[in-house]
Amino acid sequence: MELKLALIGFGVVGRGFTDLIVRKKDYLASKYGLNVKLVGICDIKWGSVINTSGLDPLKALTAVWAGKSLEEVFEGIKGARALEFIELSDADVVVEMTWTNIETGEPGLSHIRKALNLGKHVITTNKGPIVLAYRELTDLARSKGVKLLFSGTVMSGTPSIRTLIRGLAGCYVNEIAGILNGTTNYILTKMEDGLTFEEALRDAQLKGYAEADPSMDVDAWDPAIKIAILANIAFDADLKPKDVVRKGIRGIRLEDIKDALRRGKRIKLVARAWRDSSGIKAKVTPEEVDINSFFGQVSGTTNAVMYSTDSLGDVYLIGRGAGGEEAGQAVLADLIELHSLLEERIR
Amino acid sequence: MELKLALIGFGVVGRGFTDLIVRKKDYLASKYGLNVKLVGICDIKWGSVINTSGLDPLKALTAVWAGKSLEEVFEGIKGARALEFIELSDADVVVEMTWTNIETGEPGLSHIRKALNLGKHVITTNKGPIVLAYRELTDLARSKGVKLLFSGTVMSGTPSIRTLIRGLAGCYVNEIAGILNGTTNYILTKMEDGLTFEEALRDAQLKGYAEADPSMDVDAWDPAIKIAILANIAFDADLKPKDVVRKGIRGIRLEDIKDALRRGKRIKLVARAWRDSSGIKAKVTPEEVDINSFFGQVSGTTNAVMYSTDSLGDVYLIGRGAGGEEAGQAVLADLIELHSLLEERIR
Repeated sequence: MELKLALIGFGVVGRGFTDLIVRKKDYLASKYGLNVKLVGICDIKWGSVINTSGLDPLKALTAVWAGKSLEEVFEGIKGARALEFIELSDADVVVEMTWTNIETGEPGLSHIRKALNLGKHVITTNKGPIVLAYRELTDLARSKGVKLLFSGTVMSGTPSIRTLIRGLAGCYVNEIAGILNGTTNYILTKMEDGLTFEEALRDAQLKGYAEADPSMDVDAWDPAIKIAILANIAFDADLKPKDVVRKGIRGIRLEDIKDALRRGKRIKLVARAWRDSSGIKAKVTPEEVDINSFFGQVSGTTNAVMYSTDSLGDVYLIGRGAGGEEAGQAVLADLIELHSLLEERIR
Repeated sequence: MELKLALIGFGVVGRGFTDLIVRKKDYLASKYGLNVKLVGICDIKWGSVINTSGLDPLKALTAVWAGKSLEEVFEGIKGARALEFIELSDADVVVEMTWTNIETGEPGLSHIRKALNLGKHVITTNKGPIVLAYRELTDLARSKGVKLLFSGTVMSGTPSIRTLIRGLAGCYVNEIAGILNGTTNYILTKMEDGLTFEEALRDAQLKGYAEADPSMDVDAWDPAIKIAILANIAFDADLKPKDVVRKGIRGIRLEDIKDALRRGKRIKLVARAWRDSSGIKAKVTPEEVDINSFFGQVSGTTNAVMYSTDSLGDVYLIGRGAGGEEAGQAVLADLIELHSLLEERIR
């Protein structure tokens, strides 16, 4: 089946995904019977273009690599801003990969609402809209008979969400625990090598793991959002980031790390969600974990999640949690799942 | 949607699954819209009964717990042997959970062929038919427009197969490595505590982890079958158990284990599959792994698998690999996936 895609956001994630559909064109066709037709790209920096007869994805990548606007190199409807772009695009699937404002979820939230209301399937890697409007958006998608897939919002391409929804389908999840932020885990790992927090943070910034303003990571907002997303799926809850008890890693001293190591422990920023008699709870706090444990072995930018279940006990999934190609892979896996469901509809 | 199920095999796995559909009846209906109607059970020991107006699953469990034949407690068509049972059952889904002969795949292989040829969906936990006739059975299912799901064949309910097929959809897998046999891992863990191989094996037999004839486990046939199944999925191959280079753990001495520990290593029975220029390769052999690694932390009956991929690097999944409830959960997850696909057909 051919699926017509419109991309909103052509940054690291958008280009990571586009690179995959270029490289894997034949593989997707032969293995899954999936043909991707790119009918529009809309980006605040690289311009907006729609062409219902198709845009060559390699040409889009080449243009941006050369610093050229997409509007320079493609024919079609040009300059449409995102909401209008969604209306005009004639896409089956809108892929939302813009930057997130985690207070408002905008502009992604409006893009997703618009696309769903027009009866288009949506795939997003955008955490803000999903965590702030989980219930509203999943209900809206259901009422419109379309799919909303967002596996890239937690642990990037490592399939934490798909494992929860599909792999553990039918299980009751009692608790979720995770090392969900690679930047802070990298800093804590570097501190074990003897760097102070400030030195390790600077190193992470130099390597591109931490932003100039590192507060989303070191103050634990990012893992708070991710654990809320997982909790909302697992417990059918509607937690917002502010509902998550949150303590970052700024206060951790080199001597705390060394003292823990002497006792066979490592300090990790652990996100947890669970249910008790008073409802659904979530927190992100530094914890001491045994070196001799799965979490104790998660070093550098690696992420991990543990689902504690009724029938299977504790199930661990461990892998990378960030990167353009990794996030692109999350979108690709969502697209393949969507395609397999749509194939059933036309049987 | 209501799905009519016929169960073949009412041993540990069949009863584990049946127990789940009793306990989770309301949960399955409210969360997934799935209503399970049991229309037949066929077991070599407990008898065979078909009743298209439905069999009470709790009554079936109670009968067997009390040592009674199913034919004693239910009305309906009684005594049909498996192939005839499949024909008469009027089921949408045949769940095949019999004992495996790994040389022939029988009797499960004939059951699965029959059900698929009659246009019935099949869910199985039966490794033999899947490893011996992977290509044939998946092609047959496709040609009949029905689904063949077998996630319980590797790592039981821990979703190793669903992660490979769904979670990593779109990835190229370059290598698979796994600790896929809980019995041998339990024996090796006990040997670290100072037991000899013979003592540890006896302990595993007392606990019910090892059979009286332990050769399927200790001679590595079981993990050889499992790695062949994973390789066949990942690499679209058609490996048989005999194609897997195989070395078990009988030759491992206590002093080997101790010597490895002194060097910061543990001996694990590791299954591997990979592709190189001359084709698809697989082996199961004892390997020394670092204590400070994910595999090094897999102790007792726990299983683990690592998929080495192009876009995501190494992805680890760790959890239990055996047990009646765990295998029942694998069948349940398959059933929920099947149901979600069939729901699309009737939209």
